[in-house]
Amino acid sequence: MDNTSHSSSAVVAAEGHLIDSQLLTAIFDTVINRGGAFEVQAFDIGRTNDEFSRLTLKVTAPDAGSLTSLLEALIPLGCRVAAEHDALVRPADRDGCAPEDFYSTTNQRTHVRVAGRWIAVERQRMDAAVVLEADRAECRKLRDLRIGDRVVCGLDGVRVTPEFRDRARADFAFMSNDVSSERRVEVSVARIAAMMRETKRAGGRIAFVAGPVLVHTGGVRYFSRLVRAGFVDVLLAGNALAVHDVEAALFGTSLGVDLEAGAPVSGGHRHHMRAINAINRAGGIEAAVHSGLLTSGVMHDCVRAGVRYVLAGSVRDDGPIPDTLTDIVEAQDRYAAELANAGIVIVLSTMLHGIGAGNMLPAWVPVICVDINPAVVTKLADRGSSQTIGLVTDVGLFLHQLASDLTPEESR
Amino acid sequence: MDNTSHSSSAVVAAEGHLIDSQLLTAIFDTVINRGGAFEVQAFDIGRTNDEFSRLTLKVTAPDAGSLTSLLEALIPLGCRVAAEHDALVRPADRDGCAPEDFYSTTNQRTHVRVAGRWIAVERQRMDAAVVLEADRAECRKLRDLRIGDRVVCGLDGVRVTPEFRDRARADFAFMSNDVSSERRVEVSVARIAAMMRETKRAGGRIAFVAGPVLVHTGGVRYFSRLVRAGFVDVLLAGNALAVHDVEAALFGTSLGVDLEAGAPVSGGHRHHMRAINAINRAGGIEAAVHSGLLTSGVMHDCVRAGVRYVLAGSVRDDGPIPDTLTDIVEAQDRYAAELANAGIVIVLSTMLHGIGAGNMLPAWVPVICVDINPAVVTKLADRGSSQTIGLVTDVGLFLHQLASDLTPEESR
Amino acid sequence: MDNTSHSSSAVVAAEGHLIDSQLLTAIFDTVINRGGAFEVQAFDIGRTNDEFSRLTLKVTAPDAGSLTSLLEALIPLGCRVAAEHDALVRPADRDGCAPEDFYSTTNQRTHVRVAGRWIAVERQRMDAAVVLEADRAECRKLRDLRIGDRVVCGLDGVRVTPEFRDRARADFAFMSNDVSSERRVEVSVARIAAMMRETKRAGGRIAFVAGPVLVHTGGVRYFSRLVRAGFVDVLLAGNALAVHDVEAALFGTSLGVDLEAGAPVSGGHRHHMRAINAINRAGGIEAAVHSGLLTSGVMHDCVRAGVRYVLAGSVRDDGPIPDTLTDIVEAQDRYAAELANAGIVIVLSTMLHGIGAGNMLPAWVPVICVDINPAVVTKLADRGSSQTIGLVTDVGLFLHQLASDLTPEESR
Amino acid sequence: MDNTSHSSSAVVAAEGHLIDSQLLTAIFDTVINRGGAFEVQAFDIGRTNDEFSRLTLKVTAPDAGSLTSLLEALIPLGCRVAAEHDALVRPADRDGCAPEDFYSTTNQRTHVRVAGRWIAVERQRMDAAVVLEADRAECRKLRDLRIGDRVVCGLDGVRVTPEFRDRARADFAFMSNDVSSERRVEVSVARIAAMMRETKRAGGRIAFVAGPVLVHTGGVRYFSRLVRAGFVDVLLAGNALAVHDVEAALFGTSLGVDLEAGAPVSGGHRHHMRAINAINRAGGIEAAVHSGLLTSGVMHDCVRAGVRYVLAGSVRDDGPIPDTLTDIVEAQDRYAAELANAGIVIVLSTMLHGIGAGNMLPAWVPVICVDINPAVVTKLADRGSSQTIGLVTDVGLFLHQLASDLTPEESR
Repeated sequence: MDNTSHSSSAVVAAEGHLIDSQLLTAIFDTVINRGGAFEVQAFDIGRTNDEFSRLTLKVTAPDAGSLTSLLEALIPLGCRVAAEHDALVRPADRDGCAPEDFYSTTNQRTHVRVAGRWIAVERQRMDAAVVLEADRAECRKLRDLRIGDRVVCGLDGVRVTPEFRDRARADFAFMSNDVSSERRVEVSVARIAAMMRETKRAGGRIAFVAGPVLVHTGGVRYFSRLVRAGFVDVLLAGNALAVHDVEAALFGTSLGVDLEAGAPVSGGHRHHMRAINAINRAGGIEAAVHSGLLTSGVMHDCVRAGVRYVLAGSVRDDGPIPDTLTDIVEAQDRYAAELANAGIVIVLSTMLHGIGAGNMLPAWVPVICVDINPAVVTKLADRGSSQTIGLVTDVGLFLHQLASDLTPEESR
Repeated sequence: MDNTSHSSSAVVAAEGHLIDSQLLTAIFDTVINRGGAFEVQAFDIGRTNDEFSRLTLKVTAPDAGSLTSLLEALIPLGCRVAAEHDALVRPADRDGCAPEDFYSTTNQRTHVRVAGRWIAVERQRMDAAVVLEADRAECRKLRDLRIGDRVVCGLDGVRVTPEFRDRARADFAFMSNDVSSERRVEVSVARIAAMMRETKRAGGRIAFVAGPVLVHTGGVRYFSRLVRAGFVDVLLAGNALAVHDVEAALFGTSLGVDLEAGAPVSGGHRHHMRAINAINRAGGIEAAVHSGLLTSGVMHDCVRAGVRYVLAGSVRDDGPIPDTLTDIVEAQDRYAAELANAGIVIVLSTMLHGIGAGNMLPAWVPVICVDINPAVVTKLADRGSSQTIGLVTDVGLFLHQLASDLTPEESR
Repeated sequence: MDNTSHSSSAVVAAEGHLIDSQLLTAIFDTVINRGGAFEVQAFDIGRTNDEFSRLTLKVTAPDAGSLTSLLEALIPLGCRVAAEHDALVRPADRDGCAPEDFYSTTNQRTHVRVAGRWIAVERQRMDAAVVLEADRAECRKLRDLRIGDRVVCGLDGVRVTPEFRDRARADFAFMSNDVSSERRVEVSVARIAAMMRETKRAGGRIAFVAGPVLVHTGGVRYFSRLVRAGFVDVLLAGNALAVHDVEAALFGTSLGVDLEAGAPVSGGHRHHMRAINAINRAGGIEAAVHSGLLTSGVMHDCVRAGVRYVLAGSVRDDGPIPDTLTDIVEAQDRYAAELANAGIVIVLSTMLHGIGAGNMLPAWVPVICVDINPAVVTKLADRGSSQTIGLVTDVGLFLHQLASDLTPEESR
Repeated sequence: MDNTSHSSSAVVAAEGHLIDSQLLTAIFDTVINRGGAFEVQAFDIGRTNDEFSRLTLKVTAPDAGSLTSLLEALIPLGCRVAAEHDALVRPADRDGCAPEDFYSTTNQRTHVRVAGRWIAVERQRMDAAVVLEADRAECRKLRDLRIGDRVVCGLDGVRVTPEFRDRARADFAFMSNDVSSERRVEVSVARIAAMMRETKRAGGRIAFVAGPVLVHTGGVRYFSRLVRAGFVDVLLAGNALAVHDVEAALFGTSLGVDLEAGAPVSGGHRHHMRAINAINRAGGIEAAVHSGLLTSGVMHDCVRAGVRYVLAGSVRDDGPIPDTLTDIVEAQDRYAAELANAGIVIVLSTMLHGIGAGNMLPAWVPVICVDINPAVVTKLADRGSSQTIGLVTDVGLFLHQLASDLTPEESR
């Protein structure tokens, strides 16, 4: 950085599909919105759709502090300081805390420069610190930092590679940020099914994150088909999904609504509590399955099929049943472990657990959010990776369509 | 109960404002929807608006099991078995579990008959068991039951008194279940302000349950006026409200949006993590206030004014900061303790914590739900007591209006 | 009416399923909310589910004007003035205007007393005047009144019979006012299909009122199956449905979205205008079908199957095409004529035309409203008859389900 | 165009803020999505924020038809065929119809080349044909075409200049497409007020397009302050606004809700019809004002202040009153005339009239859409110009804030 007449400037570089992915626009906007100025020193446009573009940009800010802040904002857009230095590393001085100027991660692919070499950061996720160990670098949550951990600070020697929008995967691109309900849900479901098949073919795992609406909307039978057919590797949910599912299995109701007839059953709220009491008495879901108490439903089918599930507690839980993790730090750690190698994540009508899962994922894992409420879909998409696909529709019908596509032999 | 030609019947009685409160309709509906039949043995209508009505009804169901199930459904509507018996009491045989036929409470006023006397149940809440101790009866959550606890089972000797809709409190009645946005928000706010003043005059406590939207929508300054003026006795929230509030206080942003200018500040997400790190380093919010790090905002003002707050963790939390209770059972117990004598509860744009709080409240505590999203308001109202009032509007503007009404001296 | 100490009172009578239909509650509420008082002179409760209840009620208001206003409000609830008089009739003194105190109709069954006989009012609809001709009475819109028409005024001799909620039609009752999306859409569709079959069996007509979302959501092929199978007697829509349908038929797009691929086709808006120009050049839809220009789609199928359609213009229309009625008074009259003997009306995602149609219908014609947006469904249900059923779901999937149920032979 | 090995290609040129306005991204996307290929022949990037960029691009499509279709799609993005020709002109051969290959306009600034000179098209609006008359060119709706009109066809000699996003007007940019409710409404209102003041200073006109929600939400008194202060030049609405306003003025209710007390007044629907009858008898709104019948409300204030209003009819209208234009073609023409020189348009909770007005506006007129329902705001923004600003909030509160800002002297 040089300082001329009290203003500060630096030269940054970036390369990739800068135009298609709107990174160039975002870079320019960021400079101007933060009161800076820019001068394009070089711009080499990709001549065809396949070629990368390359940018060298001089940015100027009113003072050194503003410049730092501006550079912080440009890093997630794929800019790196043109003059390369090693990353600055400071030891953590307290358990659970980072140095004040720690580098806070995005969910994009990140490299840090150590001893002149660029190292890929492992376990990429947003809102973490980067810790160096020997010749490795990994994301670590603030609460997991321990005194002496070597934490990357400042901006030097950090390089982020944003996901480039891949036009070739047109099925994917078309749906990005498309939360309109006035689209053909059927087309979307067919594409999601194709992505799921492709994930399994590639040996990836499929994670579902589901709320109790799965039960209310009659989706259990279709979800079970996906479980049996091997399209569910892990189910992340809360206490409510399990309790509603058990209630439906034991009593045929869900919070007092008869699921077959659709008619409300007054006093049926009692079934909810009896379901909880029954699972408590049995000692948990797995015990209830093995004892023959629980013979159908999502939880039963997961136990029978050996599908892993993690139930995270929340302040609104009834019970909770013994399977529910009441400590949310433990629940987050278990969620994160299960999502570590997920190839695709499908969120069914749960803002709470959907955001929880989304926070843990790197930007390159596609997330499908299904909800009847457009506001929920928009909110999840806003927070999530650029790969979030929103679908505004009824979860029961979505699962019906999905199961018809993926397990046609069971359709009639 | 007698049994004639394989069907079973019983005689129930109810009294109160059965017509105004639509209880009579609900009682008849319940019998018919569950395949039963009824015969009015006596109905004494209240001649004027002030008089009670009295009903004696013979209900018949196809078999004894159906009759029991039907009676279970009629109890919350204020019916009691006409032939009075003492409540059946069984000891709990396992910690955290009730006998299978335990009576599961509603949030309405409940009495149980012990040794010929009707005793009022204390700590009324929904979805609990009733435990007898000496000459007292109280609601207890399943998880808090211990071996040997004397638990009320079955339906004999249980009497529920539903809240009667009070026509005289017309200001209140008009808004019940009214979630339309096409009403005059101003009129509604004036009435809520009146209810708050009345609550304080009567020595009651006012609890706020708030999501981070309080910060995003610019409500902090208005909420702080309510805190300073003594209109907030306790704040129930999650980690997010505290972190967004601290971020706004330290950096002037909230998840990357400049709160004054309204403009997005890219890279501002980093402020979010720095705020968490700063509180972690300080050792918590109170310490941060006392050390002079935190000098404004909702959390600061609560600490300064001695307003209690409880932060309940969730699986989507960043951090969480040290103040946040990560165990949700502990969080629920703390919420419940703070709500024990609340006179009015105001929920600002948080479905999660709003439902959590609502579950703990008896039916006679009014709950005000404010959210820009009608679906959230409807959902909270559906689950809550009959006293839930929904208001579809922007939380920032709501607080502005409310503070102008309650603390006019600060308005200019 | 007598006058005691400046207050005024009257005796009214009502009979029917007063409790089940919540009329008794509404009657009491109405008196109290308007500052009156009531005294039950007689109430004879229906002893069983099948029996009517009978009420005689003395109502008192502060003065004669308030009493009249109160009685006006009680009439739609089924109350009639106990002392029977003939209806007061005044001649209209200007074309298009009624006398100031004209009786404004509800959409409920109405009788008027003429020469001591109660005559049923024909062409029942809301917001009309009642005109007597010889020994007949019929609803007439204000604009259709002509000088000298004999218009019923005041409240004497008017009796309204509200629809009683029919518990036996449980399939129907359960859905009334149920706009939640967390229900099993499949159950609802099965019931709607049953109602449609029943309507046809009874010789009734089925009217669809549809917006262009029918096209966007891929519903055309399923709607066409309903047309061919005779489940559509008339289609009421606007210019937009026809234009989008023609655009899809001619170009495979709808407002620039490729309907098969789901991908947006930029510049495709042009197809919209070309479709309009093509129909203009052909001289209208029917001519375009006969000339071979238009060979598929909803409009084509209607023409081929002889299904009537009425297109009502609006200020947002592009074109409009020649088939669209640009005068809204003419459009209303044509809508009303087609709805005159409809047995069931299904509104697909059009608030404008749905409300237009709803205004014309008597209360006993069931109206099904399907929309992905809960707010629209609520709004239509609020205005419509008590028979309005809301269903929050995607129109394309709804039609898919409905066609699978009603025309299974075409499903594969 | 040249043809090599059966594929077709052309060279196009564009210039302007191609990156900031995301035009470059859109151009590349359009080529690829339509199965074409591109090769950048020259790209000259604007070195600083103020400088234009310049692009010369060779695009290739599989065949001549696809190329034409592709070029059609590129025109609205600011591309023009590099080799300049005069526009092709054909005479209309039928009234109300264009030649099949007519050029269908966007709402962006457009020039056509005639005799070697680029002429600006007048009365710019979307979905029109361009007609040449002497040395002028203007937009004309299809229905207004007459035999012999000289209509621009094809793509040669047409140049569109998209609105460039103006970063300097940061207050404006920030809100574009921002429909989130979690923003500070107050900040937004302050900016809208500033735009209105600026419009008046510049001699521009302010048009309001309003639905009846203006009345329901208690906005009348605030809107009237804007009328009196000269901030309303024309009011475009429907029959419903006028009728609800008159009902409120005459009876203090709006569709049966007491506006002061907020309480529903059963039977109040009758006031609605009496209001219509009263205006019918008076002979219209203006006559009702002059006769002293109508003494307050929006319509009254407009008449008194000489503010023009146009009421467009719709199929859902009650009445309609004499002022309402029942022919929608006439209504559109009157709307268009009033909007001809509008500097800013504010749409208050009316999708129907808002879209109607939006269709008529050139892209450079800012449109503010206020609605409590995010779906409505999104829909209006999707269709409207790039200048559409959505604001999700209660209309009554919005007007209160706006009036407090623009007419502070009346606030207390």
